[in-house]
Amino acid sequence: MKTIDLNCDMGESFGVYRLGMDEEVIKHISSANIACGWHAGDPMVMARTVRMAADHGVAVGAHPGYSDLMGFGRRTFHCSLPEVKNYVLYQIGALLAFCKANGIKLRHVKPHGGLYNLASADPDVAMAIGEAIAGVDRDMLYVGLGGTSGRSSAKAVEGLCLRAIREGFPDRAYTPEGTLLSRRLPGAVISDPEEVASRALLMAKENKVTATDGSTIELNVQTLCVHGDNPAAVDLVKRVRQALESEGIGIKPMGKMA
Amino acid sequence: MKTIDLNCDMGESFGVYRLGMDEEVIKHISSANIACGWHAGDPMVMARTVRMAADHGVAVGAHPGYSDLMGFGRRTFHCSLPEVKNYVLYQIGALLAFCKANGIKLRHVKPHGGLYNLASADPDVAMAIGEAIAGVDRDMLYVGLGGTSGRSSAKAVEGLCLRAIREGFPDRAYTPEGTLLSRRLPGAVISDPEEVASRALLMAKENKVTATDGSTIELNVQTLCVHGDNPAAVDLVKRVRQALESEGIGIKPMGKMA
Amino acid sequence: MKTIDLNCDMGESFGVYRLGMDEEVIKHISSANIACGWHAGDPMVMARTVRMAADHGVAVGAHPGYSDLMGFGRRTFHCSLPEVKNYVLYQIGALLAFCKANGIKLRHVKPHGGLYNLASADPDVAMAIGEAIAGVDRDMLYVGLGGTSGRSSAKAVEGLCLRAIREGFPDRAYTPEGTLLSRRLPGAVISDPEEVASRALLMAKENKVTATDGSTIELNVQTLCVHGDNPAAVDLVKRVRQALESEGIGIKPMGKMA
Amino acid sequence: MKTIDLNCDMGESFGVYRLGMDEEVIKHISSANIACGWHAGDPMVMARTVRMAADHGVAVGAHPGYSDLMGFGRRTFHCSLPEVKNYVLYQIGALLAFCKANGIKLRHVKPHGGLYNLASADPDVAMAIGEAIAGVDRDMLYVGLGGTSGRSSAKAVEGLCLRAIREGFPDRAYTPEGTLLSRRLPGAVISDPEEVASRALLMAKENKVTATDGSTIELNVQTLCVHGDNPAAVDLVKRVRQALESEGIGIKPMGKMA
Repeated sequence: MKTIDLNCDMGESFGVYRLGMDEEVIKHISSANIACGWHAGDPMVMARTVRMAADHGVAVGAHPGYSDLMGFGRRTFHCSLPEVKNYVLYQIGALLAFCKANGIKLRHVKPHGGLYNLASADPDVAMAIGEAIAGVDRDMLYVGLGGTSGRSSAKAVEGLCLRAIREGFPDRAYTPEGTLLSRRLPGAVISDPEEVASRALLMAKENKVTATDGSTIELNVQTLCVHGDNPAAVDLVKRVRQALESEGIGIKPMGKMA
Repeated sequence: MKTIDLNCDMGESFGVYRLGMDEEVIKHISSANIACGWHAGDPMVMARTVRMAADHGVAVGAHPGYSDLMGFGRRTFHCSLPEVKNYVLYQIGALLAFCKANGIKLRHVKPHGGLYNLASADPDVAMAIGEAIAGVDRDMLYVGLGGTSGRSSAKAVEGLCLRAIREGFPDRAYTPEGTLLSRRLPGAVISDPEEVASRALLMAKENKVTATDGSTIELNVQTLCVHGDNPAAVDLVKRVRQALESEGIGIKPMGKMA
Repeated sequence: MKTIDLNCDMGESFGVYRLGMDEEVIKHISSANIACGWHAGDPMVMARTVRMAADHGVAVGAHPGYSDLMGFGRRTFHCSLPEVKNYVLYQIGALLAFCKANGIKLRHVKPHGGLYNLASADPDVAMAIGEAIAGVDRDMLYVGLGGTSGRSSAKAVEGLCLRAIREGFPDRAYTPEGTLLSRRLPGAVISDPEEVASRALLMAKENKVTATDGSTIELNVQTLCVHGDNPAAVDLVKRVRQALESEGIGIKPMGKMA
Repeated sequence: MKTIDLNCDMGESFGVYRLGMDEEVIKHISSANIACGWHAGDPMVMARTVRMAADHGVAVGAHPGYSDLMGFGRRTFHCSLPEVKNYVLYQIGALLAFCKANGIKLRHVKPHGGLYNLASADPDVAMAIGEAIAGVDRDMLYVGLGGTSGRSSAKAVEGLCLRAIREGFPDRAYTPEGTLLSRRLPGAVISDPEEVASRALLMAKENKVTATDGSTIELNVQTLCVHGDNPAAVDLVKRVRQALESEGIGIKPMGKMA
């Protein structure tokens, strides 16, 4: 049976501030990327979220970001490569402690926001993150952008003898060249549930995506990113999962694929 | 051969700010308590300090504190017990990642400043820290105040099937009741190197300390706290070590004692 | 015509995190206490909130708190008196800049959470805050707990030749001694809108409150604290305002009372 | 008499961390740029530093930076223009409160590190800072890079009817085009005290600087930046001041020039 992973960013609340419908979306996904207290999350939120993922049998990954709570880690921040490595190492370790306390493994690392974008565009940054992963546990998976844009970064990480998982975005438009259409351009984000579900299916079943010019291009991804920001987003996740399962695609954590 | 551990707080620099003579004091101690980025330290400092300890064969411990860089973690901060547990868990994990990346073990946990004081006075707080330790690795040692004051806390931690290490302060005055004389009172801190060295020797060799009234009381400690703040402090550490070794006391990491 | 002030804590969002229904509650109050970026709020939120208050003709006050975003400034934090003074001075200044940029005055200072509680209980802390106020503008009003508990603190601030405004809580139970019933005890918070409205009326009209034993005691307050956390809270504010106005009590900023 | 201003960044300590020889360098300068708690400084340090400047009759300016204590505000951080404006507004206000409490004026605003570089290169960023200044007090001066590089930014700020002060760096090499030689290139920083002093003199007296190719180019600056990081830096400041005064150049705060 063909399988794919559904991943969602979680644990992004902070102190009294609540963000995301984690309790709902956790029921429908196979991997949770949990914020590590820098761009979002705090130790109480991390404890709660790791416990919840463990209870639902959802694979846990670290979701490290820049030290920029005020900008939610989305802003670009020019750090040196040793800084990137050590910042990620720190955050992986922090989340690892909560995994150990819950008797589960930390399975993957997916950088957040500005760091994700930079890591996808710059193989040196991806390698700095890869070195942090290799320092802690070589079985942990690196998650980066699939398609043309993230190709060099994924290969760089694999050069460190780590497994790089390619990620697809069923709710984002792709150019004919296989890169994500910039969010600044119209049509970058797709909101129709049926269209998103059918794009997810095309990615999972045929390793393809329909580009902005209508052409069908190859896109080989092992995990699909979904969101749990609001009730509509959660419904969309349900719809995507339903579409995949009704076509015989299994939903499995990225680490457990063949 | 009788042995004792000499421990020192390290890795307390932050960004461009430098604190402590870590490169000097590391040569003379057997255990380093390394700040974890909350009250002091940052990931670059942690990477540097763990590497240095590994190079010198010095045992590494986590030195977690309150999220209060502005007050260096010395101020009292009323957190709940789950907060204490999760804050310590977070910091232990963060430091653990740097230990793993350097191929060494994380050996002990010594709370810092206001948290140390609270943990020594309140067995519930000590247990919250103990639960964090137990969540990560039951072989890690808990370090707390020796003598009468810290007794209930040490016993509470031992009730979790963890090893509690009692700490002595050769440069601090003890009351006849076996508690530390408050820093607010005159004579609380002893600065004469010879006196400090002979007090360290009495603690290590005979499990005793001379109290403020001149009486000799029992004080059973397995580690002595020394400082590396300035050249005089480093000289004092050298003097203490020399005094111990010249009397046949071995200097060994706390985890390696019989 | 008798008047009273209705004040509400506002601007407590932070980055992507949203808190409070500021846009709704602003329509019904006369004074806004705006967070200054330490326990809540950030410069973007402050700019937006001050602008909104200016647009609605609502008086603006600073709402300084501890440097504890993770605990929303509610936890007790043992700072020295000079620290309290300078922390408050810093936050008052930060908010003042936004008032100046909007061409309005900064009218009052109401400490937040743990700092409010401490200032109400300890006249020295109240005076440290008063000194910060006096350093910036002696026309700014100090807001503290009314009733027996806050009496010494209010008097201490008045000793600095500042005006201290007494605050009442229509949704909180008062003991026969005129102190707030601890939140830990049952019945501490009153949720029935009619009861809250009638208590507000009794405070505003007759300077009285019904205590937990049914007796009526004196409570002389110049401002009533209301909340805008959720739609029910906003409805309650409307109900309180309606009750006051229907009895001929005017709603005026605390600085504009006779 | 011809005059020039000598400015120095100050108040960059934080909590227990000490940075800079403020007590020494304050004796030799005419303007102090004081950190505002984001990239460096805290309210206790600000209180102490403003008081010290007031005692020495040195003009006080705000030295706002990015919210990046870990990187000392030197790293580039992509904020939006409204963010820059409001972040600077916040920090100006915070420092203003300490000036008011000491009965002195806040005279100028000089952005720090990454923000200074960006403001000098990008007129839109300079204008965002200018708008913050204009929001608080149009008499405050904007300090930016003199020479070719900062020209557009200075003109942009002047377009807001603010005064822009051009800054020169006697210890930095200038290209024949009138821009600062990148720090990454050899010879970018000049350390010989006599050479620095004679460059300062040429800038102050003749509005000129010797470029890297030996040519003399025009450089019209109203303030010279000096440093107080260590005893050698302080000696260099003394030497510069001496050289200027011995040639009849007065040392006056930038706001007090003709």
